[in-house]
Amino acid sequence: MKIYVTGSATTAFGELWNASPRGLARQAVFGALADAGIEIADVQALFVGNMLSGMLGGQEHLGAFFAEELGLTAPAFKVEGACASGGLALHNAVNSVMSGQYDTVVVLGIEKMTDHKPEDVATALMGAGSEEERSGGATFPGLYAMLARIHMREFGTTEEELAAVAVKNHYHASLNPNAQFHNTLSVEQVMKSSRIADPLKLLDCSPISDGAAAVVITSKKQKKAARRVEIAASAVATDSLGLAQRKTLTGLSATQQAAARAYNLSGMTANDINVAEVHDCFTIAEVLAMEDLGFFPKGKAAAAIAAGQTTVGKGGRIVVNPSGGLKGCGHPVGATGVKQIVELVDQLCGVAGKRQVEGAAVGLAHNVGGSGATSVIHILKK
Amino acid sequence: MKIYVTGSATTAFGELWNASPRGLARQAVFGALADAGIEIADVQALFVGNMLSGMLGGQEHLGAFFAEELGLTAPAFKVEGACASGGLALHNAVNSVMSGQYDTVVVLGIEKMTDHKPEDVATALMGAGSEEERSGGATFPGLYAMLARIHMREFGTTEEELAAVAVKNHYHASLNPNAQFHNTLSVEQVMKSSRIADPLKLLDCSPISDGAAAVVITSKKQKKAARRVEIAASAVATDSLGLAQRKTLTGLSATQQAAARAYNLSGMTANDINVAEVHDCFTIAEVLAMEDLGFFPKGKAAAAIAAGQTTVGKGGRIVVNPSGGLKGCGHPVGATGVKQIVELVDQLCGVAGKRQVEGAAVGLAHNVGGSGATSVIHILKK
Repeated sequence: MKIYVTGSATTAFGELWNASPRGLARQAVFGALADAGIEIADVQALFVGNMLSGMLGGQEHLGAFFAEELGLTAPAFKVEGACASGGLALHNAVNSVMSGQYDTVVVLGIEKMTDHKPEDVATALMGAGSEEERSGGATFPGLYAMLARIHMREFGTTEEELAAVAVKNHYHASLNPNAQFHNTLSVEQVMKSSRIADPLKLLDCSPISDGAAAVVITSKKQKKAARRVEIAASAVATDSLGLAQRKTLTGLSATQQAAARAYNLSGMTANDINVAEVHDCFTIAEVLAMEDLGFFPKGKAAAAIAAGQTTVGKGGRIVVNPSGGLKGCGHPVGATGVKQIVELVDQLCGVAGKRQVEGAAVGLAHNVGGSGATSVIHILKK
Repeated sequence: MKIYVTGSATTAFGELWNASPRGLARQAVFGALADAGIEIADVQALFVGNMLSGMLGGQEHLGAFFAEELGLTAPAFKVEGACASGGLALHNAVNSVMSGQYDTVVVLGIEKMTDHKPEDVATALMGAGSEEERSGGATFPGLYAMLARIHMREFGTTEEELAAVAVKNHYHASLNPNAQFHNTLSVEQVMKSSRIADPLKLLDCSPISDGAAAVVITSKKQKKAARRVEIAASAVATDSLGLAQRKTLTGLSATQQAAARAYNLSGMTANDINVAEVHDCFTIAEVLAMEDLGFFPKGKAAAAIAAGQTTVGKGGRIVVNPSGGLKGCGHPVGATGVKQIVELVDQLCGVAGKRQVEGAAVGLAHNVGGSGATSVIHILKK
């Protein structure tokens, strides 16, 4: 059975103080339904990807919560896997359509973070980490800083090369009307920004964001759909929550495993991918992703990114994070994995405007939970 | 494709102050694996049903959390739908096996509630309700008390009849070694217990509990499995989170819808069911379930329960909650929906000991989230 995305939409990402979760969900879902040319009554199940609503807002039961808001009495589920919640919601949605239980479902990724104090958000986000990391006072910038240090030591990766990831992603975000940031950056600006967790600086880190994204998934031909993209693979792998339990820290094993499975399921290799949306929660994370996904040999990605090999319009090996990524487009955690799909659909259908990747035919989305305990990969093709 | 439960296990339910979530998960999952005659390495995905770990313990990312504890690097997901989290995890597990993505998966339902102050637990549980109910200071005993008042007014249901539900379920629990309570109750004892939310008294309410339950789900014949039960239907429906938005309050529309779908999927009717585990978070909830599931006409269930029509060994219409239900066996919220399946498997395989239902061939599990915003129904047969 072939599974398709027939509708997709995202809200603007950013500090949306005047928007409610209900309003964001409506905008994303009804946008995706309009795109697919279907009505809410055609939706047979709703999958919600969200991490923080319980811890920050005291609201759980989000499947039913958003189903009510959308006017659905169909089955509704919240799927949670930290920052990979959106990708995991999509994975379960794909499986549910493949199972024959449902033939048309909606996946909604959503997070509302900026209504809360940043320190509360940082504490809540540590719910994605191990008990030792949480009780020891670790933060995600600190954990990724350790991964950066190891990469620098093992492969000679430089802080300037890491900065180049942020520079590229802000450039891409400047071309994306829905991105949180539209300002471009220089390597010098990144290097001069405050040190958060050495060697990571403020501008190596993705922001705290609000936003929602939604996609319609179906096995049917939907005649009114403006466009249709096939999901050629949906794959997930896990690893230990804590860094201390990992066999290696020069890459994320869960990403390597999920990538192997996704390439196997789709019959493709890394060479077939033209465009990728990857999980750059910190600049080092994009470097690790490039290598773990097989786009560049281990230790070689940072220099390639700095040389423009993954920048739109540069004719390089592959364009990465044309949306601006988590760094430039923003990172409302539960929404991110779904927004990646929305961006890839736009790219594969040639409607990505100024950030359009020439000849994009196959796209890959890579969504990570925590410091790599969960990795979700989807491969999409025209 | 036929889907089977080939292994099942539950921990004791209760105030397990010396047990950790990790330990409970290990006990339930390795018990279920031993029952199925398989190893952890045979497990292709893990579905975790849990509601409160984020709000009460600051720990999310539970799929990866428990995968690590169990020694799995397979895909792992947390599915949340308030007190229906266990049932929703099972539903998604069933779909994932039907999809062909995975052929053998484990569903773990788990909750650790008694380490926290009861008032904090009560507040966290309101995360299952609507914003108006939460901000207005409603509690779940209060919401179900309203449902009880309406049922009493419409159908003449009495407080003594409601008490009979607790009496029956404590009697069943007294026969279940894993139940939280082993003391039997009289109607008089229930009637004399403290009024919590009039007309509901303390002994009309399910307790705060710890516990875990796990099942192995597969489409394969597992030769070493001691026994095998088919999942003939898995169905979910939703309704508004808040009572104020419902069209009727004499029953739960989500249960009626999910039941219609489950009967349709299985080709069965209410008359085919010999044994049921239903969501008696409060005594009135079991009365509503009996009617919404079609076991008794609307308004007639309470008297039938009081007359022993659903008590084990009484030769009545159907045996309901032989485990002791949420009231007697306990209600660790994320575990409940999975424990119901464990009990039904025992019943259908004739190994339920003193609480064995004679000739049990078809069982139904009914798991509710909140005050009925989510309802999940599974039908199992030998």
